[in-house]
Amino acid sequence: MSGYDPSYDLETAHRMADAAGAAIRPYFRSGLAVENKLTAGFDPVTAADRASEQAMRDVLAERAPDDGILGEEFGETVRDNARRWILDPIDGTRAFIAGLPTWTVLISLEQAGRPEVGVIDQPHIGERFAGWPGGAALWHGGAKRQLRTSGRTSLDEAILATTDAYLFSGDEAAAFERVRRTARLCRFGYDAYAYAMLAAGGVDLVIESGLQIYDVQAFMPVVQGAGGVVTDWRGGDPSLGGQVVAAASEALLESVLPLLAGAAR
Amino acid sequence: MSGYDPSYDLETAHRMADAAGAAIRPYFRSGLAVENKLTAGFDPVTAADRASEQAMRDVLAERAPDDGILGEEFGETVRDNARRWILDPIDGTRAFIAGLPTWTVLISLEQAGRPEVGVIDQPHIGERFAGWPGGAALWHGGAKRQLRTSGRTSLDEAILATTDAYLFSGDEAAAFERVRRTARLCRFGYDAYAYAMLAAGGVDLVIESGLQIYDVQAFMPVVQGAGGVVTDWRGGDPSLGGQVVAAASEALLESVLPLLAGAAR
Repeated sequence: MSGYDPSYDLETAHRMADAAGAAIRPYFRSGLAVENKLTAGFDPVTAADRASEQAMRDVLAERAPDDGILGEEFGETVRDNARRWILDPIDGTRAFIAGLPTWTVLISLEQAGRPEVGVIDQPHIGERFAGWPGGAALWHGGAKRQLRTSGRTSLDEAILATTDAYLFSGDEAAAFERVRRTARLCRFGYDAYAYAMLAAGGVDLVIESGLQIYDVQAFMPVVQGAGGVVTDWRGGDPSLGGQVVAAASEALLESVLPLLAGAAR
Repeated sequence: MSGYDPSYDLETAHRMADAAGAAIRPYFRSGLAVENKLTAGFDPVTAADRASEQAMRDVLAERAPDDGILGEEFGETVRDNARRWILDPIDGTRAFIAGLPTWTVLISLEQAGRPEVGVIDQPHIGERFAGWPGGAALWHGGAKRQLRTSGRTSLDEAILATTDAYLFSGDEAAAFERVRRTARLCRFGYDAYAYAMLAAGGVDLVIESGLQIYDVQAFMPVVQGAGGVVTDWRGGDPSLGGQVVAAASEALLESVLPLLAGAAR
């Protein structure tokens, strides 16, 4: 515990999430236009994505003008400050385009290279998951409740989640398959929402690869504040993205890392 | 069009969905107990499942006492009547257990062997998709809007969904893979909710196998009322379950059936 008081920053994050949700909602399920960000591969970007990030930047301009910003849409705004807000205006754009309400807005406050406050917000359902040093909570339907992972320790009782069964190839696919075969069941297709479910005690284990800094920094405080652990596939610091494993308990993580080790980068 | 007026039955279905949602909500994300229905394999049943079906049966006892009932939890109640309500109190129990809000309550009214009214309800989000001869609508947040599929005709532009990449094996897996490789993108893990998204225009194609009568009869009226088509993998009547394909347009269906034909039962 750093002695850091997150209350002002949490309030800022709440206002950012409110603003992002209001900006996105008109576009969801409205036959929106889709562009391709990359010429190769499929990486949809929507007007909603940009409206969301702009709305969050407007809140920061008012409440935290001296903080740096790294946003997936508009890049980096550098400030002479050890604080940096990291924004993914819509995580799960494929779900968004399909009309599935498991996309989220991701917000993180990094201080001295470490994510201190993280928010996973789902505006259509009206669910907001937030984490900070020492705690995590879910706001839904006017109620706030504390988040705690299941604490599950045994892989064969664990519910595993990953975004896409086709995300992995080669040795990564083999490593994931070793875990999947032992786990109790496996769910696909939830992007960052899977980490929110881990913090809420429904999912016990999330394993992914190819993650961005935008994703990881937002869900780390939520998972950790709920008593879970997040590392890379070697058990090291995952905060820059790449191969990530999040678990409901230290013991569960320890039982999974050896299965992933052969494919750890 | 049969001249059948669905208004009384739709109102009955609404009341059933209201009652089911109220019965389920206290159990969702509450660390519920899980039983195994089958000795082999994993088929979780919860107290919520039973409370949901009982609540729907109570509505039917009052509003439609002469109709038959086929429920996934409590079996068949036979009546000397060509009308039968088909109930899946929680579709997507795996999602339910994981805390993911893509499980649904499925309600269908079959008349003379054919599903006339269907409801896909998601109580946590507060979304209700209903279909009847000639129409389909979504209720959400106090608003009602008409459902229309995307009408998309080309597989390489289509968004494909299926519940589980591991659902298929052998020739079915190969057939699914032929479709997946051509489709624009593929989403996993939504159970009957994927058909609601097809009716809403977000998803263009859903391909599954091993479905139950409870699933199919509820989403057929929703998809068809929104202008979509549902058949088995041979292009025949899917209403008893098994291998099912649902598409946003007749043309899209026609382009997919040849890819599935080799594995059609």
